[in-house]
Formats: sequence, C-alpha cells, structure tokens
Amino acid sequence: MSQVFNFSAGPAMIFPEVLHQAQAELTNWLGQGVSVMEVSHRGKYFMDLITEAEKNLREVYNIPNNYRVLFLQGGARGQFAALPMNLIGKKNKALYLNSGHWSATAAKEARNFAEIDEITIVENGDNTHITRLDFSDIADQYDYVHYCPNETISGVEIFEIPKVGNTVLVADMSSNILSREIDISKFGVIYAGAQKNLGPAGITLVIIRDDLIGHARKETPSIWNYATQSNADSMINTPPTFAWYLCSLVFKHIKTMGGLKTIAKQNELKAKTLYEYIDSSKLYRNVVAKENRSTMNVTFVTGNSELDTKFVAEATAAGLQALKGHKVLGGMRASIYNAMPLEGVEALIKFMKKFETENLL
Amino acid sequence: MSQVFNFSAGPAMIFPEVLHQAQAELTNWLGQGVSVMEVSHRGKYFMDLITEAEKNLREVYNIPNNYRVLFLQGGARGQFAALPMNLIGKKNKALYLNSGHWSATAAKEARNFAEIDEITIVENGDNTHITRLDFSDIADQYDYVHYCPNETISGVEIFEIPKVGNTVLVADMSSNILSREIDISKFGVIYAGAQKNLGPAGITLVIIRDDLIGHARKETPSIWNYATQSNADSMINTPPTFAWYLCSLVFKHIKTMGGLKTIAKQNELKAKTLYEYIDSSKLYRNVVAKENRSTMNVTFVTGNSELDTKFVAEATAAGLQALKGHKVLGGMRASIYNAMPLEGVEALIKFMKKFETENLL
Repeated sequence: MSQVFNFSAGPAMIFPEVLHQAQAELTNWLGQGVSVMEVSHRGKYFMDLITEAEKNLREVYNIPNNYRVLFLQGGARGQFAALPMNLIGKKNKALYLNSGHWSATAAKEARNFAEIDEITIVENGDNTHITRLDFSDIADQYDYVHYCPNETISGVEIFEIPKVGNTVLVADMSSNILSREIDISKFGVIYAGAQKNLGPAGITLVIIRDDLIGHARKETPSIWNYATQSNADSMINTPPTFAWYLCSLVFKHIKTMGGLKTIAKQNELKAKTLYEYIDSSKLYRNVVAKENRSTMNVTFVTGNSELDTKFVAEATAAGLQALKGHKVLGGMRASIYNAMPLEGVEALIKFMKKFETENLL
Repeated sequence: MSQVFNFSAGPAMIFPEVLHQAQAELTNWLGQGVSVMEVSHRGKYFMDLITEAEKNLREVYNIPNNYRVLFLQGGARGQFAALPMNLIGKKNKALYLNSGHWSATAAKEARNFAEIDEITIVENGDNTHITRLDFSDIADQYDYVHYCPNETISGVEIFEIPKVGNTVLVADMSSNILSREIDISKFGVIYAGAQKNLGPAGITLVIIRDDLIGHARKETPSIWNYATQSNADSMINTPPTFAWYLCSLVFKHIKTMGGLKTIAKQNELKAKTLYEYIDSSKLYRNVVAKENRSTMNVTFVTGNSELDTKFVAEATAAGLQALKGHKVLGGMRASIYNAMPLEGVEALIKFMKKFETENLL
C-alpha cells in the first residue's frame, strides 16, 4: 500500500511508533499472555502504567505540584456539564467567551446547570480575528471564565492567555493540548478530549488546581466529581484502560522526541509552511488573521464549492485523507496535530500545487 | 509462552479470535492505511461499522423493534446517575432492590438525584439467597424499579425476572449481558458496562424502550440524555470508537458461534462443572444457594485465609490468573464470562484438585 497521510480533525492520527507498539503487544502485554484490555485496572501492572503515565505527562507539560491530573470518561462535552457542577460557587455565575462553535457549545451546555454570561470575542469575515482578551475589569463577578483556545472548525487559535484577574480560568484544550509549552499556573482547569493530541477517543484529561477540588454540588455524578475521582486515582469506576494505555505510550513518545520544545517547533514549521504556501497561491485562501491562525487546523477554500469538492476527491485518491472542511463552513481543512509529520504537509502542498496548475483558469 | 487462563472479573478476557483480528488490522483498517482509531466517527466506514454492530446485536439478543440501542460513555456508574435524570417522572420516586454491592451502589448514586426507596432482597450467610422477587403489590408507587441480576462480588445471580406490574423495570446487566437469551420486552431499560461480555472498558450499552426516551430533566448532561443521543446515533460527541469497533467484532463473533443458544449452553456447562467439583471437594466451599449461583462469577473459599492466599499465588504461577476474590469478601473468585473456554474451567479444576491433595490435612 502506498503512503497515506490522514488529516482527520478527530479522531486524528496517532504517532505510528505508538500504534506499532500497541499492535505488537496487543495480545500479550508485558509478557503476561493477555491483552492490556483484559487486566484489572487495580492490578500492579496497570497501576504502574498510570503512575508512569502521570509522571511523564507532568514532566512533559511541566505541571505544577499543586495541580492534579485526572483521566475521566465522557469527552470534553461531558466536562461541559461537569465544570459548572464542580466549579459554580458563591458567585453563582460563570463567563463563557465565545470564539466559535466549540466555546459556544460549552456555554449552551453549562446553561442547563448555572447562570452563564457569554461574550463573543471573534469577528468572522475576510480577516477572522479575536477581538478581546482582557476581562480583568469584569471577571470578579464570576466563579470562572471559560474559553476554547483552539476552534477546530474555523481554524482559529488564541495564543495569548485571556486576562481574568484572580478569577479561575478554564480552558477546553481538546484540540491543542500538548502542542506547545504553556504556563499552567495561569489556569484553574485545563481539560481535553484525547482524540487529537493525546490518544484515541474515549478518555478525557483534566488538569486542575487542587484548591478547586471538593466544591461539587450534590447533584454531581460521581464519575465527574473531581474530589471523588481525585481520591480514587480516577478509578471510581472501571476506567477506559486501553485508551489510558495508549495515552501513556504517547506521553512517553513525546518525551523521547525531546518534549514539547521539539513538538512546538515542528508544529510551527508545519503550520508556517502550509500558510505561506496558501498565501502565495492564486487558488487557495485562508481567511483567518495571521495572529489567530491555528497551528492545528488549517482551513482553506478555493472560492468555488464545486472545485472544493473536486479537490477533496482528488486528494483522497492521492492518499491525502479527510481534508473535507466541517459542514458548517465547507471548503477544506487540514488538521496537522502533533502526530502529523512535516512530510505530510509537504505532500499536501505538492498536491495543492499540482491541483492549482490544473485548475487555475 | 505457556497457555494462560485469565479469570479477571473485569476488565475481563476477550475472545481470542476478536483480539487477533484487532491486532492484525490495528494499523490498517479496511485497507485504508490508517487505524480504526484514526478515522472520523462520521465517515462512511465507521458509520457502516455501527450500523452492522447494531444489526448483529439486535439479531443475537432478539431486541424488539420498539427498543433503541445506545452506546454511551461513563460506564454503568455513569448510568447510575443518568437513570434517575432520565426516568424520574410523575411519581418522583424509584425503588432499588439491594442484592449486593453493585445494586446498593446504584441506589446510593441515584439518591443524589431523586427520592429512592431501597429493599434488601438478599440474605447472606451459609446459604446466601434471594428472598423476594415479587413487588407487584407496591411497584406502582414508583417511576421505575432497579435491580442488578448478577452481583460480581458475591457471585449471586437472579435468574427470575422481578415482578413489578406495569412499572418500568431497569436492570444493570454489566456482568451477565449476552450470557443467555432473555425476554427484553419485560424490561424498560437494560444497561451494561462493556468490560465483561461486550468488549473493552470505556463503552456502555443502553437498551431502552422507546416510550421512555424524551423525558429527561433539564439538568441532564447531553451525553446522557437518551433523547439527544438517540437522535444523534449515540454521537452527540466523539464516541469511544475503538471500544465500539471491538464490541462490533464481539457481536459478530457471537453470531458466528451460533448465537446465545450456544453461548448459554457453554456458560451453563462451565458453571455446572465448576460448582459440582466445588461441592464434591473437601477443601473448597461456595456459600450461595444453588438457585442463585452465578454462571459468571464463581466464588469459593477454603475457610483458611492463609491457604486462600497460597492458592491464589500458586494458581497464578500455574498460569491461572486473577483468581483473588474481591477484597470485601476475600477468598477466591473465578470469573467465567462468555469468552472463557471450557478448557479454562477444566484447567482450574485440575489445579484445584492438585492443590486439595497437597493441602488437605
């Protein structure tokens, strides 16, 4: 089979080294004669795995000691509900910054559980950009401020951390977690579905400052009660062991690669290469302002929806998979998360050039 | 490596044929050049997979047309919270039958969301047995009656379906789902964590009568709102795709084996063989009344906790894994779910006989 590159927005590609290790040991993990899927999560081998996974993640992401790491179920959308249940307190209100589809969806879900104020911080158009990040004047009315630093559908990324004074800042990092170094101490809670940069779908990472744990309302499902799960090693019930195992391999692999410094450099180079080509081309266009262009999801259009459809079909035939844009925006989207090699971006650009030559009238 | 048999209570063993197929195609699913973990859940290939999975499950389990099938996240314990959120209605109260640890845990969680009455229906001791299954005189006070037909810790199974008049009957079948044919029309909701008889941990099956869908309270997380998920093919967010895929292979494998008639016969034979040996031995003892002995989890003790410890250690060394009983009961437990072959039970009995000869004073 010829080489393919998978630009899926999520579930997204996983480092080939990780997949090959998982394949090699799928029926015989650590020489036990059984699969990692078949062992007790409370047994020594699996407990060792989660200890090492957390150690490697803490090291790679430079997680301060006063933060806990939880591995939960239910995806980021589960956390959309869990956050207000755990974090709404004396002020009885939270602020949600709307920068696109996912941050808006988080606010909508939260509204079922608490009073939510919402401020739109994106201006869409030919120069889509973030309009406001300083909320220090109003933040103290709220128990927390929520935002989504990378919107996968539009390809808008927020690199600067919003100013919220002493209010707790919560970030849905599902699509850019571990993509670069960040100052975790600026956040109260960081959470992420796994299926872009962490591992397979079905496990959710929550990094939370320890003083925010222990304030959940009574009507909080125990699997999402941060105190309950923190006290139970994220094992108040049977965890998604295989997904956790794969995450552990990803953390180790990132460490082996040289950590987030290396990852971030690669991500910047991939994104820069692709955006520079798009800007130089006569056929393709990206409408996001340079300062908010996502390093993870690169959106582009030809301006002709029939041509977009043709592009996706021919790219797929050429082994460049899952380039169709999200249905609400149309066009194309190349998701170039951590596991996408530079070669994939180069192959995409090569194809784009050929397609441009053949189709530019 | 010599043959091992894995008696883990869960995550439990998976059919070797399923694991080998998953291993063979882990990095190249359906010739696409990518893993099943790396593709969009909304793409044609994955949508075909879930369609076929549901078709096979419906056929194997004989699920009536007026029942929907959902694949959710959060485990059975997630459903412990989701059930009252979705099912509590006009009567504002539910009845939970307590037959052991898991049914009691379900009731405890439900109490955070609704008024719950609880009736103990088990008498523990030298002849542990179920004391009551007819609730037709009181059931109409309740929106639903919940029970757990197989308690994994004590090894108590309830074969008769409780009588609840016209009230909705809800069953946590995590540990005996698909172990034999049942009359699904007797139930309002059947739910199960996957990690015993369905597939790997991280996916939860909910089979629900369609008139029970659409009554969730506002404060129901969307990932557990049965109406929302039913309308979205269980994909209101990214589902645990790999776990779902493995379940699909398990359903197909059960069909290939001859369906639940074959499975049930094997399960009965395995359990009968093991219990008959235990009853005939001078060293081992099972305290559950014959009519409530679990076909899935066979508990036994020597009556001497040091000897129990020695048994587990020597069994492990002999390739008979995970036989240690749950910490609250001690002793031994052999979990012999669908995927355990008769050979595993025979190997266990052979070892038990040898150990009895060596240790019976």
